[in-house]
This record gives sequence, structure tokens and C-alpha cells, in this order.
Amino acid sequence: MKITGKTRIMFILADPVAHVIGTDVLNQAFAARGLDLACSPLHVPPEGLASVLQGLRQIRNLAGFGCTIPHKAAVLPLLDQLTEEARAIGAVNFVRRESDGSLTGTNVDGAGFMAGLKAQGVEVTGRRALLLGAGGVGRPIAFSLALAGLSELVIANRDLTRAEDLAEGVRALVPGCRTRACESREMPPPEGFDLVINATSLGMKPDDALPFDPRRLQPQSVVAEVIMTPAVTPVMAMAAARGCLCVPGLAMMRPQAGLVAEFLGL
Amino acid sequence: MKITGKTRIMFILADPVAHVIGTDVLNQAFAARGLDLACSPLHVPPEGLASVLQGLRQIRNLAGFGCTIPHKAAVLPLLDQLTEEARAIGAVNFVRRESDGSLTGTNVDGAGFMAGLKAQGVEVTGRRALLLGAGGVGRPIAFSLALAGLSELVIANRDLTRAEDLAEGVRALVPGCRTRACESREMPPPEGFDLVINATSLGMKPDDALPFDPRRLQPQSVVAEVIMTPAVTPVMAMAAARGCLCVPGLAMMRPQAGLVAEFLGL
Repeated sequence: MKITGKTRIMFILADPVAHVIGTDVLNQAFAARGLDLACSPLHVPPEGLASVLQGLRQIRNLAGFGCTIPHKAAVLPLLDQLTEEARAIGAVNFVRRESDGSLTGTNVDGAGFMAGLKAQGVEVTGRRALLLGAGGVGRPIAFSLALAGLSELVIANRDLTRAEDLAEGVRALVPGCRTRACESREMPPPEGFDLVINATSLGMKPDDALPFDPRRLQPQSVVAEVIMTPAVTPVMAMAAARGCLCVPGLAMMRPQAGLVAEFLGL
Repeated sequence: MKITGKTRIMFILADPVAHVIGTDVLNQAFAARGLDLACSPLHVPPEGLASVLQGLRQIRNLAGFGCTIPHKAAVLPLLDQLTEEARAIGAVNFVRRESDGSLTGTNVDGAGFMAGLKAQGVEVTGRRALLLGAGGVGRPIAFSLALAGLSELVIANRDLTRAEDLAEGVRALVPGCRTRACESREMPPPEGFDLVINATSLGMKPDDALPFDPRRLQPQSVVAEVIMTPAVTPVMAMAAARGCLCVPGLAMMRPQAGLVAEFLGL
């Protein structure tokens, strides 16, 4: 990769930042498409977000920037325009800088997640899913799964209010998907679900608790993970040992380069 | 080059930006030193500089940033600390972000220029130099040449006041160097000078006028250029055809990676 004054730039805003590999995934994908575009990580603490965004508006060779934990929801009120997806989801994971410096937010997490499932041949229509986490990445996954024809969705979250809020949003958009919320510690065991998705951050740190009990998985269930570092989380390793097909976090990230390039009109 | 969340970042702020190759020169030099550091160009117009700097203060994985045309002098009042070099020169070409978000400006243009001359075996002590340009890059070159023991320095600039201001500063710092200023169109012909330096931007655009008349160069004169794109400017090509040793702009840039790494404590 050669970065010169002709290279358009892109960032991923995160805090913490050391675990981020999306910059490299995007850079490799852009290079493969012959695009002169370079993505770097910006370690932005929550209290610095507004000020950083004011600065980014002024940078003329900035194509856009990705947002990850903890900025996906916090960035919303700081933007000028939102796509329908971002508005419905209530979270933004990519922002385009328009030529006048205004900022348009979208969310390609859901589309990336669905593309990752599809690449592994995972069927969603008519199936039952257990989703752990109703945060910045859980929200787009819930909407995308429901829109893809899921028959039943259970959303488990530490904070019940957020899970209920998300369930209500999904029911309003896709009444045909039976959607309910529960508190994490009251969630049903994973057996009986075709798809179990970890959309929490549990598994990033070595001493994290398991997001659900993998001993109660049936081998025909698919386990999907949103965490990219480590590439194989403890719960994935245990699920794989039980014979489950596992879809890693990277599977969700990789298609996003194409989705982002499309959103940027490249 | 692999850019991940562990990579420390760096920028070069410029307007225009398309001609910038310093990002690539630095990235190659950092990689050769085994440093996980990536430099990208930021196209920042003058009216956006203050806002961009406020944002950069918030970015915790930012090692620092370079400043080039037109920001070298404009950035000064926006910084918290200046090195002695930057203060004397009145221009900053590199800024370090301290861990508390404060910004320290320095100037390694002069040291880079001198290292470039040295690498080509060019002697300065006791010699006579004609310097074209008294701007952000002409200023550090003037001070560095005088400090290196030049016997005579003529500074030609379109705006005579700036040339006189610089000449006065050099005389105050190095009384032993006979330094005088003149307006560009009144400048003496290059013959008789051991060293002729183009520190103007003339030569970047194909239809630029020549910064001086190379037909009046003597073959024993050395011609130094600060422009990096194109690598060989028209005046350099004509000087080389007359048998003059030419020191390209890249020779001044290349040593700066080491100087910047040292300033950053890497």
C-alpha cells in the first residue's frame, strides 16, 4: 500500500482501538478493487467525539469514516443526514463526507452480517434465532434478520429496556416475525434455536464470561459472532467442538468494504 | 504496510494535497525502522485549520502531524509549545501530540535540508548562496545555512518585506554571515554563487515561470530544490544540462523521517 497526496482517506473511530482490524480488512479489499483509498484507526474517547467530527468536516480528501464501539449511537445527533437504515436501526457504522462538509450516516452492519451468513450458506427464512445484545451491532442484526424472513427472534440483553425497545421496533417493521425481549440472565437455553448470535462484547477480553452456555447447543445450530479479535472466541471454540457451524466476526466485516465502496459511489 | 488498531497514526496537513509524497517517504522509512506508524495526507484548507487541530488534540493514537504549504506559519498560534528552532524560524513543519492532548511544534526542514546537502557531499562553510523564497521553507533553510558557516547569503523574494524580515533575523542570529535581501525581480544573476536554492513553489505547475535564469549558472554551482513533485523541475533539468550538481527536493525530505522519529522519542 502506497499512501500519497492523491490517496483518499478513511478512518475507523473507536475506543478502545487496539483490537480494531477493520482498517486492514478494508485496505486489503480496496487494494483488490484497485481503489486508492487508505483507512486508519482513530482512537477517539466519547468526550472527544463532537470535536473530532467538527475537524473531519473540514478535511477535503476524507471519503468517510466508520464508527464502532462506543460511537455507533452517540454519533447520530452529530450528523446532518441519515439513511433510512441508520434511522430505523438507531445506530450508524459508516459516515460519508459530502463535498460541502456535511455528514451522512448509514449502517451496513446488518447487510454485512447477512452477506456473511449467505457466504456460509446459512438459511434464515422461517428459522428461529436467539440474539444476545441489543446495542450498536445487535440492533442492525435484529432488523436484518427479521426483514430476511425469520419466524421467531428472542433478544436477550443485560438492560431489559434496550432489548424491549429493539423488540418493539422490529415488531413494528416486521410484524410477521414473532419477536420478544428478555433480560440476559433469564434467556432461554440455546437449544431449539437454529441461529445463536453473540452481539455483545463478551469474548474480547480473556477473562470475559461466556455470553451463553454453549454446552446446551445442538450440533445443527449455527453460531455467529460479531467479535473480530480474537478471531475465534471461547464460545465459538466450544460451539465448533460440539459440531456447530460457526460464522466468525470477520465474515460480517469483509463484505462491508464493498457495501461502503457502493455507499461512497466508488 | 498493514494498518490495524495497534498502529500509531500521523498526518501531513496540506492545501493543495495531490502533490504530497512525504506520506509515502515517511511510511517507507518507518517500515524500514520496524515502526508500526502510518502517515496519511489531510487536505485542510486554511479556514479549516483551527477546527482540525481541535479535533486532532482528541485523537489518542495520534503521534503527530506534519505541516506543509500553506500551514507552516499559520499553525504557530494554534500550538501550546514550540521548540527553539520553530520559534527562531517562525514556522513549524512537524507537531507532536503530547499525551495530555497539547501540541508541540518543531521545524526539521532546515536539518533535513542540511542532511540532504551533506549526503551529496556539498560543502557550505565559507560559501556564497542565493536563496529564492522567504516563506515557510525558505526561512528554516536560511537559518540552517547561516549556522553552518556560510559566508554570504542573498535572499530574494517577491515580497521584499518578508525577505528583509528574514535577513534581519539571520543577521541577528549569525552576524558572521553577510546577509541581504532583495526583491525577486532585482535579484543578482546566479553566476558567482556556489549554491542556488529554489525555496519557492515555482516549478510545481507545468506553466510556472522559472524561479531564476539557469542560463546564467556556472557549472561549479550547486542547485538545490525544495519541490518534490515533479522530482526533476524544469530549472533543475536546465541546471543539470549545464553541468551543475543538483540536489532534489526528495533529498531534503528523506532525512526527516529519522529526525521526526527522534522528536517523537521512537
